[in-house]
Amino acid sequence: MKCIDERSIGTWQQTADFVVAGFGMAGACAALSARERGGSVVVLERGSGVNGSATQAAGHFYLGGGTRPQLANGLNDSADEMYNYLHALTPEPEDQKIRLYCDDSVQHFNWLTEQGIPFNDGFYKRKHVEQPTDECLIWSGNEKVWPYSELAQPCPRGHKVAVEGSGGALAMQRLLEQALRVGVAIEFDSAVTALVKNEQGRVVGVCCRRFGEETSMQARKGVLLATGGYVMNKEMLKKYTPEALFEKFWPQGGANDDGSGIELGLCAGGEAIRMERFFATSPIYPPEQLLKAIVVNKYGQRFVNEDSYHARFARACLDQDDGIAYLLCDNAVFARPEFQMQELIDAWETVAEMEAGLSLPAGSLQNTLDKYNEDADRGHDSLMHKHPDWLQALREPPFGALQCSRGEATYTGFTLGGLKVSVNAEVLSPSGQVIGGLYAAGACASNIAQDSNGYSSGTCLGEASYFGRRAGHHAISAQAMS
Amino acid sequence: MKCIDERSIGTWQQTADFVVAGFGMAGACAALSARERGGSVVVLERGSGVNGSATQAAGHFYLGGGTRPQLANGLNDSADEMYNYLHALTPEPEDQKIRLYCDDSVQHFNWLTEQGIPFNDGFYKRKHVEQPTDECLIWSGNEKVWPYSELAQPCPRGHKVAVEGSGGALAMQRLLEQALRVGVAIEFDSAVTALVKNEQGRVVGVCCRRFGEETSMQARKGVLLATGGYVMNKEMLKKYTPEALFEKFWPQGGANDDGSGIELGLCAGGEAIRMERFFATSPIYPPEQLLKAIVVNKYGQRFVNEDSYHARFARACLDQDDGIAYLLCDNAVFARPEFQMQELIDAWETVAEMEAGLSLPAGSLQNTLDKYNEDADRGHDSLMHKHPDWLQALREPPFGALQCSRGEATYTGFTLGGLKVSVNAEVLSPSGQVIGGLYAAGACASNIAQDSNGYSSGTCLGEASYFGRRAGHHAISAQAMS
Repeated sequence: MKCIDERSIGTWQQTADFVVAGFGMAGACAALSARERGGSVVVLERGSGVNGSATQAAGHFYLGGGTRPQLANGLNDSADEMYNYLHALTPEPEDQKIRLYCDDSVQHFNWLTEQGIPFNDGFYKRKHVEQPTDECLIWSGNEKVWPYSELAQPCPRGHKVAVEGSGGALAMQRLLEQALRVGVAIEFDSAVTALVKNEQGRVVGVCCRRFGEETSMQARKGVLLATGGYVMNKEMLKKYTPEALFEKFWPQGGANDDGSGIELGLCAGGEAIRMERFFATSPIYPPEQLLKAIVVNKYGQRFVNEDSYHARFARACLDQDDGIAYLLCDNAVFARPEFQMQELIDAWETVAEMEAGLSLPAGSLQNTLDKYNEDADRGHDSLMHKHPDWLQALREPPFGALQCSRGEATYTGFTLGGLKVSVNAEVLSPSGQVIGGLYAAGACASNIAQDSNGYSSGTCLGEASYFGRRAGHHAISAQAMS
Repeated sequence: MKCIDERSIGTWQQTADFVVAGFGMAGACAALSARERGGSVVVLERGSGVNGSATQAAGHFYLGGGTRPQLANGLNDSADEMYNYLHALTPEPEDQKIRLYCDDSVQHFNWLTEQGIPFNDGFYKRKHVEQPTDECLIWSGNEKVWPYSELAQPCPRGHKVAVEGSGGALAMQRLLEQALRVGVAIEFDSAVTALVKNEQGRVVGVCCRRFGEETSMQARKGVLLATGGYVMNKEMLKKYTPEALFEKFWPQGGANDDGSGIELGLCAGGEAIRMERFFATSPIYPPEQLLKAIVVNKYGQRFVNEDSYHARFARACLDQDDGIAYLLCDNAVFARPEFQMQELIDAWETVAEMEAGLSLPAGSLQNTLDKYNEDADRGHDSLMHKHPDWLQALREPPFGALQCSRGEATYTGFTLGGLKVSVNAEVLSPSGQVIGGLYAAGACASNIAQDSNGYSSGTCLGEASYFGRRAGHHAISAQAMS
């Protein structure tokens, strides 16, 4: 990865207004947006087909403020409540980005449907991770989870592509069809290897390698980096996100998620931010009944509301001393997690035996259960504020423990750090200066999705598609999308 | 800060074998070590006198393996046990560095005394932060704290300069006298502004500014960056260590601890590592009796053994949800912390009132106290393994709470990230290549002191002096010190 001088190019071999590196969610929407403004667009995609992380995603888009499916279900959402929610859950909220994302959310949903992505008006009301039905609306985050339930009016904002099971691949298929329909040129097997700057320091094109052959491509109005995250790049993980390198953590994403776009952006003078952050999860649900269990650390203490969104629950487990976390059930509550990412350690006839079996401090678990059962009987979890729906005293032997510890349970996830960008997806230098002609969107940029604790399903596809659009619009029209 | 080409220098204005940026602990010991090998040495110090962070330090050196004061007190320490301890407490232990540091520790203690730093054979046995007496040996870390007490044979390894109260300034005074005695040239008010590389990419000198006048200084054998950390540089903190930017966190160090050496090293192709790490503390002791109190988080749960080294205790407080931590006393145990960094919130007649007063979940504190008092009565803290010396049931009203929360209590500290270096203090590139001619030691490099949780008093002065020596030796002799 490098950044070279235009003078070393000689004559450009190809030319377009807007050159996009990577046909994933961000790149596809950016290309479509640039075509809407009349620009010529070439997408250089390293793979031999469409196979970025979006194709493996569940197909959730985090949108709200009164979308068609929300209205069809009589749900009363607003851009302000959506803003309150995202603001409360984002560790370093970039207010203006969240504001724009929420204000434009209904319009963005409509735009996605216009591109051909199907969403029906169904509403899947239970807790799940990759919903088995084709229903659209889902509770995809911590909306009903305390304390967020008090900080913003809860409303389901996950919009799932209308297909049974995972819908990311279908969404990408529809975007590909639309891109070809409107005249986006997509060149597969084409890896961007260098950015090219002119004398004024503006990015004016790229170098690209296709089956060993090097070509140059001029970008009259802008270059977008949309190459995804870097969870497949061990060296980058070691350097930036060492915390994600633990046993049984399975990277989730496309095979080319190796951070090439981030490295290109750095070579051009950009800055990579929040690089230590990553999404990690190990869902205990479905089935929902496991939310009635309690999770404890090595001291036998509870530490999170068990009904949290699965990645919040997982992050809390990873944060415990020595990464130790056990999900404790009694006979009434016990079930096998559908994803089979946590194994049953053992079952015991008494709490004291369970304490000993898990090497918890003697008496610590009984102490925790005394308090929890008392709270459950009264229907109020005074310690962690788990929703009363999941409160049920754990008294029926045998007692079982599911292994949720770091290195023991299976976790999966992806990186969340990336290039610092403006609201228009312009890449910024460490001092905050725009690097002219260079944009980044999707998982190689850092916007709203910042950590596992605050994540809601659909934020990545949502922001990739939205800020991708803004990039394409800004590059061609030289003004912000509005 | 920049790195420039030797050809732009013309004729060098001054020349020495070894040029040192910064007369702090690392720079002073490096200069002395280089003189021992016969090299000519110039130290360029930005301040008008000796005023780096060491002058403000308590004057502890973490040393062991059978030093003179350890032997005089009949203590049985070994390099292996010291290694076990440091290895267990270092998050990313660099084995070879720790090994060398421990194996050479007795010899290094002797060397420090030969430079004129006074250490007597006294032993201050109580728990303190800046010991009021001139006694040498102190318990300066987590040696007796579980689980470390089981991982390495506990032995006191803090060696304090023989002066009542803080001893860092006296140590630096002695090193200055020695440096002048052996012919080290020290130029004050001289800030290094650039490193100079030759065509082969080797660092061959520096540019330096003295009262607005620019000069160049050739370094025939090497340049050492020994300019300290960056806790005084808000911009760098924002970028690298945002977690340290909270209310009532007071930077501890010299006024020139602005990271200039780290930035110089980066310009020359070095890599800065562990930059998110910092030391933070808010000591509750002295008086020791406060170790008999318990600390709880917002759920009313204990989370750390209260007899931990003060920075481990502090780090654990900062890590709790919302940074909330209260130290709870009963009437028998209550005292005011001598450093006055935590205020008394209030006192209450009953545990239930204290719960309500601190907005803890109803019943949570009583639940925690039931377990703690039962354990204390039996003399075994089954939950956190606080030493039996500090176990005493808390039952005597009134009950009081001291505020330890992030943003509420006063914390102080310094940065721990810095340039990646070899065992000989050579600055390394991101790919691990030595940048010829360039060294870094002290707080602008990253070696053994890596985080607050694993820190022991004396690690910074200890490693700064030791790896500084190695740098001076290696630069002049082109081989490792042995």
